[in-house]
Amino acid sequence: MITRDSLNPNLLRAQYAVRGPIVLRAQALEEQGRHIIYCNIGNPQALKQKPLSYIRQMLALLEYPELMSHSQTVQLFPEDIVVRAKEILKRHPHGTGAYTQSPGIPFIREAVAEFIRRRDGIPANKDTIILTDGASKGAQSVILALLKNRNDGFMIPIPQYPLYSATIDLQGGKQIGYYLDEQGRWQLNRDILTQSIMKAKREEINPVGIVVINPGNPTGAVLTRDNIVMVVEFAQEHALGIIADEVYQENVYDRQSHFFSFAKVMHEMKVRDVPLFSLHSISKGFLGECGHRGGYIEFRNLPDDVMAEFVKLQSISLCANVTGQISTYMMVAPPKPGDQSYETYIRERDAVLGDLKAKAETLGRGINQISGMSLDVPQGAMYAFVRFQLPPGRDVDVSSMTPAERREYEAKRDSDYCLALLEETGICVVPGSGFGQEPGTLHFRTTFLPPKDEIEEMVKQLKNFHEHYVRELAEV
Amino acid sequence: MITRDSLNPNLLRAQYAVRGPIVLRAQALEEQGRHIIYCNIGNPQALKQKPLSYIRQMLALLEYPELMSHSQTVQLFPEDIVVRAKEILKRHPHGTGAYTQSPGIPFIREAVAEFIRRRDGIPANKDTIILTDGASKGAQSVILALLKNRNDGFMIPIPQYPLYSATIDLQGGKQIGYYLDEQGRWQLNRDILTQSIMKAKREEINPVGIVVINPGNPTGAVLTRDNIVMVVEFAQEHALGIIADEVYQENVYDRQSHFFSFAKVMHEMKVRDVPLFSLHSISKGFLGECGHRGGYIEFRNLPDDVMAEFVKLQSISLCANVTGQISTYMMVAPPKPGDQSYETYIRERDAVLGDLKAKAETLGRGINQISGMSLDVPQGAMYAFVRFQLPPGRDVDVSSMTPAERREYEAKRDSDYCLALLEETGICVVPGSGFGQEPGTLHFRTTFLPPKDEIEEMVKQLKNFHEHYVRELAEV
Repeated sequence: MITRDSLNPNLLRAQYAVRGPIVLRAQALEEQGRHIIYCNIGNPQALKQKPLSYIRQMLALLEYPELMSHSQTVQLFPEDIVVRAKEILKRHPHGTGAYTQSPGIPFIREAVAEFIRRRDGIPANKDTIILTDGASKGAQSVILALLKNRNDGFMIPIPQYPLYSATIDLQGGKQIGYYLDEQGRWQLNRDILTQSIMKAKREEINPVGIVVINPGNPTGAVLTRDNIVMVVEFAQEHALGIIADEVYQENVYDRQSHFFSFAKVMHEMKVRDVPLFSLHSISKGFLGECGHRGGYIEFRNLPDDVMAEFVKLQSISLCANVTGQISTYMMVAPPKPGDQSYETYIRERDAVLGDLKAKAETLGRGINQISGMSLDVPQGAMYAFVRFQLPPGRDVDVSSMTPAERREYEAKRDSDYCLALLEETGICVVPGSGFGQEPGTLHFRTTFLPPKDEIEEMVKQLKNFHEHYVRELAEV
Repeated sequence: MITRDSLNPNLLRAQYAVRGPIVLRAQALEEQGRHIIYCNIGNPQALKQKPLSYIRQMLALLEYPELMSHSQTVQLFPEDIVVRAKEILKRHPHGTGAYTQSPGIPFIREAVAEFIRRRDGIPANKDTIILTDGASKGAQSVILALLKNRNDGFMIPIPQYPLYSATIDLQGGKQIGYYLDEQGRWQLNRDILTQSIMKAKREEINPVGIVVINPGNPTGAVLTRDNIVMVVEFAQEHALGIIADEVYQENVYDRQSHFFSFAKVMHEMKVRDVPLFSLHSISKGFLGECGHRGGYIEFRNLPDDVMAEFVKLQSISLCANVTGQISTYMMVAPPKPGDQSYETYIRERDAVLGDLKAKAETLGRGINQISGMSLDVPQGAMYAFVRFQLPPGRDVDVSSMTPAERREYEAKRDSDYCLALLEETGICVVPGSGFGQEPGTLHFRTTFLPPKDEIEEMVKQLKNFHEHYVRELAEV
């Protein structure tokens, strides 16, 4: 009989807070009839964001091409979508139901390369692009491939998206946390990076890569070009590969901020010896097509035989799902001016992005008015990493704790807080300890995806809850 | 700079012959304008098998629900499909674009449980079912979870589907091959299993599980109920979990053969202490929806806390793609008698299965008439594992070789053969060494998926090629 103790210890070790116990509790409450506001995960279409019409029209035609042979149906689809659906079936006659080449349908990889050329003004090649089932699968592949020895590790931000810590644990590698600079709008800081890598080396950990999430999850920060240059130089100095998680590249709301890809900056710096793994996805941006699990990795500065190993790795799972591949194609090659669907596309796109920007501001302003809570208004992505303060626990002396004890104590504090918030208000957020935070600080991550009126209501409830919770804690 | 030597050695070790060098060569020839008959992979829709209408109609409606608000479109869809599409959206209002619960949409898991109850007459529970991106991902999860120590291993058939060997290598476990009994219609043989596990134990390998593929890939064999009972008893005796790869359960052509699930047999044996991981998929059967990457694992005889670890593992990749989940739903809950789409469903289903049966016989009979080639006419699945003979190599004494040298020598022989077959005829098959074979035997695996007239032509070409190849080899 298998018991928990007979399982792979790497699996037992891995934690994924975004879907952890608080979320399970929320689902249980919901089954009992409670209204839950799910702010735990970047899942826009679960929070009433509408899919963009042009993508869904294309998928409907490709799933059931017979629709194109009836004159009455065709009238319901924009002409350019029908024309393109026919073109796709001509270039890929197997449709959505057959395995594709392992790295993905060739003309789609070419379209991704063209998207990168257009976005960044740099060369790109379809043969160094692999289409994936969402960006998560891409990140998992890179981490699996680069961990050679048991003491190899990846530098990951604190706070980070727990996909990274979980995957490193699953593959038996070492996490090398580096703090993001909360006082410096969550940018990366070279001194902190250096301290972190030196500490790892003293512990005989061998760093092989660094993960950077830009725009940031959970921080909502957008990295400046200078900050990216610094990271590339740091990676070069220490012979690290860079995993650039750029899935929020379309989600930049702040007027002063601009998305720079690592590929572009590295190309402009003429750096050719730092391996780069850039991730993108259809799940975020303005599409929010999480359920379709589409995305890609672009590889740079790798020898061909290393690239071949990544293709082989992908082949063991055969290929990414084809509907996700098609959705990725539509993401990188949307309707053009003059197409019948162009205006709808632009209107829908701008509505989603405008709405997100307004909600980021509403949430940010509202929370900053709550005494004992603060955050930078998110510049991008879909999240706010809210700092909150609680009165010190009675009879608790954190200064006498070991670092591990203190981490555990503070993790319990923010988890208890988030659980109480859920029970009292139905608002489901994730404790900061699930992403990592500096000792002595407490946070939670919330998305700003719910409809605007719910966000306003949420800010009010947060305020009442927080005041009440702090008062109770002080009275205990 | 990363080189091949700096990669994870487990990745370098993993091989996946079904998409190996011969397939890459076939793609290159195709790009030069050659007509290639792809018999290397079970990918029916790439070989002109049509998708079943009811599945695609459902996917089209769910991708673009607006179709249901136009009276003229609705006339193009069977009434029951439209009604069910509306029901699905009522039970799952997020549609295809949102992440679902990690193990999958609850009502779909319930439908899978009901499918198992109906198929086998045994209890089943939605909470021990996880929807996956095809069966491959399910197998990968189980292998990752059960490999605790470096000397842990899985028993896998020889010949086997290389997903298993590749995944075990990737996760750093040990392969424990057991030969299938070619003289005994490729059933499992207890003596061989015992010899194999004893040998592994002598080599200090700790067996944790056994993989069984039924109906067989690449063998096309269907296991008898007695054979399954034997395997369960063997697993019980040696405290092994069973991975039952049952993705070809609908593909049984032989009148004397019948598919028995491990779940049913184990339930009837009242065995409650052997962990069972049953895999199913939408890619095979009569759907052939490989591109949609849908499937499920059903878990039996696991404690709840172990089951929870599998759910956590799934959560790290968020969830299976929703289109694949919906397709799985339609597979386990097809149209019923009385539904408008029922007759079309039955007609399309029977056409696919009848066609596969006829092609299995045509290929089997044809090949058995070639001097120097033989096979059992496949009872099920989509493959024939064809045995062929070559004259002994000049100046080669296999008896003086080590086992590893001999394996390498024979692998080169069957690879050279398959490559020459490809170059001369455009027929793409996979060498037997990619699946494993007994020393002194040579095989190739071919699907019988091409259209019937192509199969007849293929048999003729195989005959000519083989005679020619043997003659040339004898003359060298």
